[in-house]
Amino acid sequence: MEPSEERDLSLEELAQGAKSATQVVATASTSTKNAALAMMAQEILAHSDEILAANEIDLKMASELGLASTAIDRLRLDHNRVLAMAQQIKEIIKLPDPIGQVTSGYRLANGLNVRKVRVPLGVVGIIYENRPNVTSDAGALCLKSGNVALLRGSSAAINSNRVIATLLRGAIGEVGLSPDVITLIPFTDRASAGEFMRLNGKIDLLIPRGGRSLVEAIKENATVPYVIDGDGNCHIYVDESANIEMAIEIIENSKVQRPGVCNAVETVLIHTKIARQLLSALDERLSSVQLRGDLNTTAIVPRALLATDDDYATEFLDLVLAVKIVDDMPDAIDHIRRFGTGHSEAIITESYANANYFCERVDAAAVLVNASTRFVDGNQLGLGAEIGISTQKLHARGPMGLVELTTEKYVIEGSGQVRS
Amino acid sequence: MEPSEERDLSLEELAQGAKSATQVVATASTSTKNAALAMMAQEILAHSDEILAANEIDLKMASELGLASTAIDRLRLDHNRVLAMAQQIKEIIKLPDPIGQVTSGYRLANGLNVRKVRVPLGVVGIIYENRPNVTSDAGALCLKSGNVALLRGSSAAINSNRVIATLLRGAIGEVGLSPDVITLIPFTDRASAGEFMRLNGKIDLLIPRGGRSLVEAIKENATVPYVIDGDGNCHIYVDESANIEMAIEIIENSKVQRPGVCNAVETVLIHTKIARQLLSALDERLSSVQLRGDLNTTAIVPRALLATDDDYATEFLDLVLAVKIVDDMPDAIDHIRRFGTGHSEAIITESYANANYFCERVDAAAVLVNASTRFVDGNQLGLGAEIGISTQKLHARGPMGLVELTTEKYVIEGSGQVRS
Repeated sequence: MEPSEERDLSLEELAQGAKSATQVVATASTSTKNAALAMMAQEILAHSDEILAANEIDLKMASELGLASTAIDRLRLDHNRVLAMAQQIKEIIKLPDPIGQVTSGYRLANGLNVRKVRVPLGVVGIIYENRPNVTSDAGALCLKSGNVALLRGSSAAINSNRVIATLLRGAIGEVGLSPDVITLIPFTDRASAGEFMRLNGKIDLLIPRGGRSLVEAIKENATVPYVIDGDGNCHIYVDESANIEMAIEIIENSKVQRPGVCNAVETVLIHTKIARQLLSALDERLSSVQLRGDLNTTAIVPRALLATDDDYATEFLDLVLAVKIVDDMPDAIDHIRRFGTGHSEAIITESYANANYFCERVDAAAVLVNASTRFVDGNQLGLGAEIGISTQKLHARGPMGLVELTTEKYVIEGSGQVRS
Repeated sequence: MEPSEERDLSLEELAQGAKSATQVVATASTSTKNAALAMMAQEILAHSDEILAANEIDLKMASELGLASTAIDRLRLDHNRVLAMAQQIKEIIKLPDPIGQVTSGYRLANGLNVRKVRVPLGVVGIIYENRPNVTSDAGALCLKSGNVALLRGSSAAINSNRVIATLLRGAIGEVGLSPDVITLIPFTDRASAGEFMRLNGKIDLLIPRGGRSLVEAIKENATVPYVIDGDGNCHIYVDESANIEMAIEIIENSKVQRPGVCNAVETVLIHTKIARQLLSALDERLSSVQLRGDLNTTAIVPRALLATDDDYATEFLDLVLAVKIVDDMPDAIDHIRRFGTGHSEAIITESYANANYFCERVDAAAVLVNASTRFVDGNQLGLGAEIGISTQKLHARGPMGLVELTTEKYVIEGSGQVRS
């Protein structure tokens, strides 16, 4: 599909095309899907110059429009990032195909054979912000899981996304599947985002990849089913029994290794009995990190700013760390209950009882004992690639890989059974 | 809690009370939960006269208000129905507790021990129509799965629901759990239903138990996560290779055994080659059923009315059956794709290839071969009790039992691991 051809179709028509493509990709063999993925990677590598040229146009417009430097960084592709896009597709080829997996099966007393089988969802809609690599990552994950990807990227990345999508669609067509298995919506205005969220009957799962305002817009307006990839306001609670050296290593890693991501730690809760010892050491070790603490913290660490409730509620995504000294573990858990976003919460402890108590009572996608919050990630946890990290409880919780892009159906085989 | 006490609390306050009760019930032992359930069954049996007296008031008002006889039937309790409520709770005691189940677990190369553990959702909100037994069924299922039930029944059943809820709450209090584990919302006006659907942060899962208008209202207005227990416009496709005797038995059972439920068949699709033979036999066997067919059907069965697209789209829930003669299986699958609601779809066939083709291509919660659609039910499929049948693809699909009232969390145990 050429860009010019795209423009002639309405949002509704593009979505209908995506829906129609579900039937073939849902029953495509793993070999066919892998052949399409291999071709996709090849096309991206063969046409990296075109991708970079389109990206150059996006970057120029973004800078003229005065986009923030972080937004421009997310938008920017370079040779290595294009290589990484192709590499990611190749990694997805290696992952096991979830479709057709029998997740349970049994025979009933009346002789009916029952099994639950993994099947694709159908059309997976992705609304995303500036990163053009989402176009290929999401497209590849959807294809491998037998789904159609209906992609709605940002206006800033439209030229990059168009070129990438056209390459992917060509690759898919080469192996005999419908190019509509990856469908890019060329409309990037606000109204079309609203329409996209209400494509009932056309989108089987909507996943937002973006900031809080996008998530709020979806919660408020979406009428299609969705899974929220929300904020990660992650905590580390350092118990009185903690190994202080270990606590420092883990806090530093969780905060500094990559501060701009959702599984970075944002607040450290410290048991009062070890507060002075830990904070003095952290003060030194985290010299590059701005600290914001309660009054007791500022008394120990003079450079720390006084934290407000807003600070405790904020996902800084930056070299800023909130600190609070707590009376005991229940106090820490209460704080997490109040400010946590259900992403990743860690305890550093040497106490068997406290580790179990914390893990049982903290309500989050992931709870960790004596480990960096940075491990809560699809690749790190062995899921292969991830399409997001769900902070909701329904359907998928935590890193979402190929399995989370599927649903199950009952297949019930009989020989004439009727109900009495 | 006495009814008078209830009235003093706002919807928001009642929901907050429910939320607060989640912590204790989530970590309650199976023995404690089972003890509460046993006490609940006992209280219902001991106070069946009070339940029936309250129900009498509801029935009187319903008849004064001119409610339809089917609605009044759903509202009506009698001695046997009260016994059945208690019996259902006793059945739930016997079911395995899903909480704490480890659904997968592994050790990563870096020594982290990862496991996924089943945990309660938190607060499960149920909006339901007239059946007062939903109060005890849903309350018991939520409690067993470690959840709090926040119940919002209809105005017609309010007196019955109040008495039942008060009994259940008393029973729960007896074993030392918070009575708020079952919280009945006493407000039954339309506006409060809208508020209920938007109790963000208070309701973790909303399940509607009611007709299409309730489902539509939820799709349009709900901002909390929900699972739709939607229409069952179920089909049986009779393949040219079908055993005609078997087809007749299955169609009769699927239509007549209990026509008013969602897994009853509504349309039979018949391969043209066997249409005359099958329809002549059905005409006789289904003499109590009104038939509505296409032109070819009415030519064979003169008593059949001419079916419109509206008929094909309708869940009759009555002794009415739509019929369509199709050219082949793809034609049947297209019809199901157009009119099906993703509930239960069956094929009657002796062909191995056609059975597989149908099962693979029909997109529904359950596909059946040579068996009555009436088997698609939590009890029949061995789930024990069910809180509904999901016709959506996310989180739960098909009959929802205790497991579908849970989510999972990652527990990641380390010894100081950091990410490099």
